[in-house]
Amino acid sequence: MVIIKKQDRILKKMRDFVIIAHKALTTGDFSLNDLPGSAGRMDILCRCINSCLFLSHDLRRDVQVHLLLLGDPEPGKIIRFDSEHVRYLNPDERSAGSLIKKALQKTAGEYEARSTPGVFIRSGNLGTLLNEFKDAGRRLIYLHEDGEDIRELSDLTNNAVFILGDHMGVTEEEEQLIKEHEAKTISLGPIPLHADHCIILINNEIDRNLSGRSQ
Amino acid sequence: MVIIKKQDRILKKMRDFVIIAHKALTTGDFSLNDLPGSAGRMDILCRCINSCLFLSHDLRRDVQVHLLLLGDPEPGKIIRFDSEHVRYLNPDERSAGSLIKKALQKTAGEYEARSTPGVFIRSGNLGTLLNEFKDAGRRLIYLHEDGEDIRELSDLTNNAVFILGDHMGVTEEEEQLIKEHEAKTISLGPIPLHADHCIILINNEIDRNLSGRSQ
Repeated sequence: MVIIKKQDRILKKMRDFVIIAHKALTTGDFSLNDLPGSAGRMDILCRCINSCLFLSHDLRRDVQVHLLLLGDPEPGKIIRFDSEHVRYLNPDERSAGSLIKKALQKTAGEYEARSTPGVFIRSGNLGTLLNEFKDAGRRLIYLHEDGEDIRELSDLTNNAVFILGDHMGVTEEEEQLIKEHEAKTISLGPIPLHADHCIILINNEIDRNLSGRSQ
Repeated sequence: MVIIKKQDRILKKMRDFVIIAHKALTTGDFSLNDLPGSAGRMDILCRCINSCLFLSHDLRRDVQVHLLLLGDPEPGKIIRFDSEHVRYLNPDERSAGSLIKKALQKTAGEYEARSTPGVFIRSGNLGTLLNEFKDAGRRLIYLHEDGEDIRELSDLTNNAVFILGDHMGVTEEEEQLIKEHEAKTISLGPIPLHADHCIILINNEIDRNLSGRSQ
């Protein structure tokens, strides 16, 4: 078992996405044939993985995804996908679901355990992630329709950490915690969208900023 | 069997997406457990349906998707999803896959046959679709990385028809046909993306234009 210490993980200056999944099962004991139902809307997380990592005929190499799983039976597990090292991932939901399932079959402790290349699991909650990013001087961004338009932020780069809710959104307690960590609230357009769709818009905005083609 | 005539279909001024799927199976005889493999990358079409139609806790009501299936055994079938009437659709890939499978179990003739509410099938090719849209005075837009930046087109509205390729892109013959129909070529950013990701960016751009918040 490969154990990854906190420093190695956080000090990378990547594009990070945190997805809060309130119902996602925290055991690997689910069927890939029923990701929405028996696995607690695991389909949402699978699509988020796709949105975060895939390019046409390529994978992004500068993105990390942190899935925060808060469903039964052991709420509070964090699965991290590191795009620089991930393997065996195809764009379809079952492929991401299979890697999540393998991660959930590992014991989750304080330090990360690697389940497959580029995929890691540990125990933790939203506070764990927010504190780590804040301590590392990262820029926290909370996605919400009331926020400032993302197109106004021309300085968005790979240092930013984006926090998104699932189909249940973000609870009041979570929102308060996010704001206590001085996250900036931004919006992506006039209509509320699914988390995986939001991620596409964020990636495009950063791609444009990094290439100097923001407007 | 409900038969839909051409006029009813085309005269709607909606936001239309055409996805060219070169390998997608043209029989319903495939497994929902293997959409990428045995069904000829049907997973791509399932994700495109999701990107075209879903909003947070809602469906768009002004979008049509035309899946052009060119795989074996009967290349040249068009499946149309009309968001105004579609039912039994959830965001996961299997859900869209199931509706596509049901459509492919119908006989495809010159006129559309309805398989489930809001989902229709007929025989046809790229020329069929392009001619119909052109005759109806619709604005054709071809997505390609060499095109003009979509953010330059502030007049994009629900009259536009967007043409996208699958993982194989668009063949030279198809591109020539598209250009003969006077399609404008536009791009979405500095990096080539999957069709379903492109659709998210297009929808966001039109949403912004329609709400008067384009930049």
